[in-house]
Amino acid sequence: MQSKAVVLLSGGLDSATTLALARQEGFACYALTFRYGQRHGREVDAAQRVARVLGAVEHRLAEIDLRAFGGSALTDAHLQVPKDRAALGHSSDIPVTYVPARNTIFLSYALAWAEVLGAFDLFIGVNSTDYSGYPDCRPEFIAAFESLANLATAAAVQGKGRYRVHTPIIHMTKAQIIQMGTGLGVDYALTHSCYDPDSRGRSCGRCDACRLRLKGFAEAGLVDPVEYSHDGA
Amino acid sequence: MQSKAVVLLSGGLDSATTLALARQEGFACYALTFRYGQRHGREVDAAQRVARVLGAVEHRLAEIDLRAFGGSALTDAHLQVPKDRAALGHSSDIPVTYVPARNTIFLSYALAWAEVLGAFDLFIGVNSTDYSGYPDCRPEFIAAFESLANLATAAAVQGKGRYRVHTPIIHMTKAQIIQMGTGLGVDYALTHSCYDPDSRGRSCGRCDACRLRLKGFAEAGLVDPVEYSHDGA
Repeated sequence: MQSKAVVLLSGGLDSATTLALARQEGFACYALTFRYGQRHGREVDAAQRVARVLGAVEHRLAEIDLRAFGGSALTDAHLQVPKDRAALGHSSDIPVTYVPARNTIFLSYALAWAEVLGAFDLFIGVNSTDYSGYPDCRPEFIAAFESLANLATAAAVQGKGRYRVHTPIIHMTKAQIIQMGTGLGVDYALTHSCYDPDSRGRSCGRCDACRLRLKGFAEAGLVDPVEYSHDGA
Repeated sequence: MQSKAVVLLSGGLDSATTLALARQEGFACYALTFRYGQRHGREVDAAQRVARVLGAVEHRLAEIDLRAFGGSALTDAHLQVPKDRAALGHSSDIPVTYVPARNTIFLSYALAWAEVLGAFDLFIGVNSTDYSGYPDCRPEFIAAFESLANLATAAAVQGKGRYRVHTPIIHMTKAQIIQMGTGLGVDYALTHSCYDPDSRGRSCGRCDACRLRLKGFAEAGLVDPVEYSHDGA
């Protein structure tokens, strides 16, 4: 029987590629997306398209209200998404788009679903190369969550299996991710990365997410198929 | 300035006592309760009363839908809450009332709120003495979460502080918890423990939670002030 995996799917480029990789490794994929008070629902629409096209067995949408706590430009309408930042890449600053404990919460839900499904494999498309600003995208965080998972659950304690948190793109550059995904047939037109799209859904081309994405496509020698309101160059 | 602490508050006896202890230690307490598809909302009502009476600075209610995943008698109406179980206490079985990854999810939310508040202390009323069936009530789980918290967050990585997960009642018997709380002035009439109350809100006296509670009061030489539909003896 095919092993099951829970795959965190945001609708962005990284998680779509991660889902494609999990399928290529032979897992039956259960995709999990959060509606967490993002300022736009376009990411969620993208996740639904990606899950369908990339053959997830099931796709669940969990509503969680991270707005209740605030503290991030991604969940708090009073904070501005930064544009045209000078420093991209290996910055030691933690950006205002950081959402407190986001990946801890996401992985906790993934673990809960995995335990119910009888799955022991979790996939998360974190990436620490292009962007080192988020503490919960680092390998040491992932290793700590894996240890926690194997203490937290009945399934692990009863010896039914050992949880693994897979981070197949953690050490790749954005360009490598795009090349790898393109090779696996991922249609990046289905994905959405922009933190601040316009009313027509076009990406801004100027926030950190757009700029990393555009830089990745340029370095991969490919053209980004999504529509931009600004050329981002 | 008084240090802030986030205190997980279910409305039961253990978490009410934990809140009283956190206040006694001098913390400004921010109580956090989850509405997670419990089969009854009485626990949440109890949490609101307890937070008010025990002087929480603020009390937040977070809605999370653990029903979406199922797998527990506490969140799934198709599973029966067990009554009159022969083995109580140091059982190696994990009961059907186990909710997959519950404390991992709860602590993740507490961590998110703590980071926004600038708090570094989390309190959780887990208890591993009377009831060893839940893997996520054990000291090794708590230690693993504490390690995770200190890798997961911007506040920790930036050296603003070190997260601590306090479990002041983890090694106490139920009788010791009740005696301690009574000494601190906790009014246990405000709390609710039963997994399966009747339509008038009376505790069943027969589920594991009621039986542990009644046994604790008996051993403490005190009378449980809540109303029961069955004497539980």
